[in-house]
Amino acid sequence: MTQPTETVFTMEATPVKFGRGAAGEAGWEAARLGMRRVLLITDPQVARLPLAADITAQLRAAGLDVGVFDRSRVEPTLESLEEAVAFARDFAPDGFVSLGGGSSIDTAKVANLLLTHGGEILEYVNAPIGAGRKPPTPLRPHLAIPTTAGSGSEATTVAVLDLPELKVKTGISHRYLRPSQAIVDPELTRSAPSGVIAAAGLDVVCHAAESYLSRPYSSRPRPGSPDERPPYQGSNPVADVWSAQAIRYGGESLRRAVASEDDLEARGAMMLGATMAGVGFGSAGVHIPHACAYPIAGLKHEYRAEGYPRAFVPHGFSVIVTAPAAFRFTFDALPERHLQVAEWLSGGPLENPSPDSLPHALTDLMRDVGAPSGLSELGYSEDDLPALVAGAMKQQRLLAVAPKMPSEQELEEILRASFHNW
Amino acid sequence: MTQPTETVFTMEATPVKFGRGAAGEAGWEAARLGMRRVLLITDPQVARLPLAADITAQLRAAGLDVGVFDRSRVEPTLESLEEAVAFARDFAPDGFVSLGGGSSIDTAKVANLLLTHGGEILEYVNAPIGAGRKPPTPLRPHLAIPTTAGSGSEATTVAVLDLPELKVKTGISHRYLRPSQAIVDPELTRSAPSGVIAAAGLDVVCHAAESYLSRPYSSRPRPGSPDERPPYQGSNPVADVWSAQAIRYGGESLRRAVASEDDLEARGAMMLGATMAGVGFGSAGVHIPHACAYPIAGLKHEYRAEGYPRAFVPHGFSVIVTAPAAFRFTFDALPERHLQVAEWLSGGPLENPSPDSLPHALTDLMRDVGAPSGLSELGYSEDDLPALVAGAMKQQRLLAVAPKMPSEQELEEILRASFHNW
Repeated sequence: MTQPTETVFTMEATPVKFGRGAAGEAGWEAARLGMRRVLLITDPQVARLPLAADITAQLRAAGLDVGVFDRSRVEPTLESLEEAVAFARDFAPDGFVSLGGGSSIDTAKVANLLLTHGGEILEYVNAPIGAGRKPPTPLRPHLAIPTTAGSGSEATTVAVLDLPELKVKTGISHRYLRPSQAIVDPELTRSAPSGVIAAAGLDVVCHAAESYLSRPYSSRPRPGSPDERPPYQGSNPVADVWSAQAIRYGGESLRRAVASEDDLEARGAMMLGATMAGVGFGSAGVHIPHACAYPIAGLKHEYRAEGYPRAFVPHGFSVIVTAPAAFRFTFDALPERHLQVAEWLSGGPLENPSPDSLPHALTDLMRDVGAPSGLSELGYSEDDLPALVAGAMKQQRLLAVAPKMPSEQELEEILRASFHNW
Repeated sequence: MTQPTETVFTMEATPVKFGRGAAGEAGWEAARLGMRRVLLITDPQVARLPLAADITAQLRAAGLDVGVFDRSRVEPTLESLEEAVAFARDFAPDGFVSLGGGSSIDTAKVANLLLTHGGEILEYVNAPIGAGRKPPTPLRPHLAIPTTAGSGSEATTVAVLDLPELKVKTGISHRYLRPSQAIVDPELTRSAPSGVIAAAGLDVVCHAAESYLSRPYSSRPRPGSPDERPPYQGSNPVADVWSAQAIRYGGESLRRAVASEDDLEARGAMMLGATMAGVGFGSAGVHIPHACAYPIAGLKHEYRAEGYPRAFVPHGFSVIVTAPAAFRFTFDALPERHLQVAEWLSGGPLENPSPDSLPHALTDLMRDVGAPSGLSELGYSEDDLPALVAGAMKQQRLLAVAPKMPSEQELEEILRASFHNW
């Protein structure tokens, strides 16, 4: 007897307020969400910008008591998250505002989770690394204000963390982690270095392309109870709409957004694309490039990217480097969809549609925005392949979303083909 | 000094669970939403279906106390809503499940509003007919289960009501009226008569086309405070994505959905399209055809549509009859967008793009699904024009969303051109 397949998918989107000047409504939104004592979570770099002072002043003007935790870490670790949790327990806010990249938003998600439901972070981390404990009720209100156009964390149910001692990145994933409201204001990216815009924008493109090219939700077995339906359900007609638009924005606007910090139209399109892609992959999921990115970002920290404060592999670069090879591998599972993504990225009909169309469209974009050419540039060599493969294989939760499940050997081939993309 | 224009738009979508068999998760969802004592709101026809008994049994099996109000009225009146409110006050539920068309969902929205915040219905009705009172905090949880593919009410912030003594339709509109969760299950439309599918589907097409062809949000004056930003903000890049997809579904699937009750793929596409269009117009808004529909549905109740229990003008027919003339009128405000809608509806490139392309695509669709040909078939004649114009002019809140504001005379011309669309 064959198991019945899934017939249902779910879709949930963070309410979004978008536009130039929208961050000027942060105080009003926090009050509307019922906050009276709020913890603002940000990182040391953003904390020094006039923006952070402005948001703090707005929250105070709206009558709120404000605490500031300004030590969220780019690529949060268990340690950095525990520090934020301890701070939150001490300050005991009734709501959170996060201001920064995905790291600050994720840090607020985790602090909110632990403050609301107690326990230790690892209890909630996805199995097998953690115990996968589920929060029983919604968390406190959380207003997310991204300052980069990348993670889409304002729209997702996931918080990612790095466990350097285990050399693994993992996460916590539950619908209640999704922020209550997002404010997405293109003005906030004006100060972002072009390297940050490039890495974040390539992350957007990967989120959207992996979602659009994920296994169809209807090919999964039907879960025994609604509670067992995974957060990453595979591609579906609603996620597709969001992913498609985010891919188009990537093709049309990322080069311009990187080229000029004053091109707020293009930077705005990438911010909107980041949120849309977050909604899309929050429902459909990401797979091979993100699974490979975990060890790529976790094993070596010697690459220096323009615009970042220290040597490490920015998340967007860690995902994009294997995307060309990954999508060459998955091509035959969904050929028309791969060509469609290539067409959206190229902004017009393909001249010679082939399995290489999408890899080529991606490498063209990577080169144009100054991405590293591949794993070699990030400091990896053939000797590292076993560790990279082992790290990627640990992400079974992600690999299960691929339209074609890679074997260990196939993952090794994808990684080997990614040393030099040009 | 010119007033600054709007730079911000907002977007909020009801979480949706979509697919064949999804209604089997109603009990689980109601419990997840924290309900313990639930009022099921439905109409007399749906109450007689095995479906209603199944949902009630599921809610009981999930451990909930269940009350049933089965007298919601197709096209709710103040009186029918007051009856529901009184029932809800008596039963005192901590949550609502609505099962049926937009009327049952709207009835639940209003009962929830009045139960949570007290007062009289008219206090909350949009000005100038009501006092436009705003609910200060969110309402109780509301799980909406539509059985028709039309209103999109599961995704919107609006409840519509008919005031026969004033010969006017109006509504209550606030973000807190949006249901907490929707379950959209194509199986539920299997029993729907083709006339109901046709009317509901043309409503979907109107919602989406009017939203896509509304005034751009950035052309509105910027509000003095976020609180004054209207629910209908005009077209914006996120609403456009939803509206576009709903229009495509209308062009691809409505004819098939009407032709066969067993074509659940097409009926499913129209249900999904209805929800998507609801999200789109919940942000962008509807305008001329919907403004004209209010008096068209309110003044005469002699048209007998196939599949409906009594003589009246189903909402979808009341909006679609003036759509061809309305979009011929608005064409020059946004010519490319009008041609784009015509192309999506026709499912391919237009042979001779012109101001008549969209009106033709609409009348082709109307004819194919058995819609009335125009106002004459609905019982209206030249003598009724002054009353129709006066009724439409009352809907300034909607007309303000049009890409080109019609004068009284222009509305009269649109209505006159709508007596016979073919």
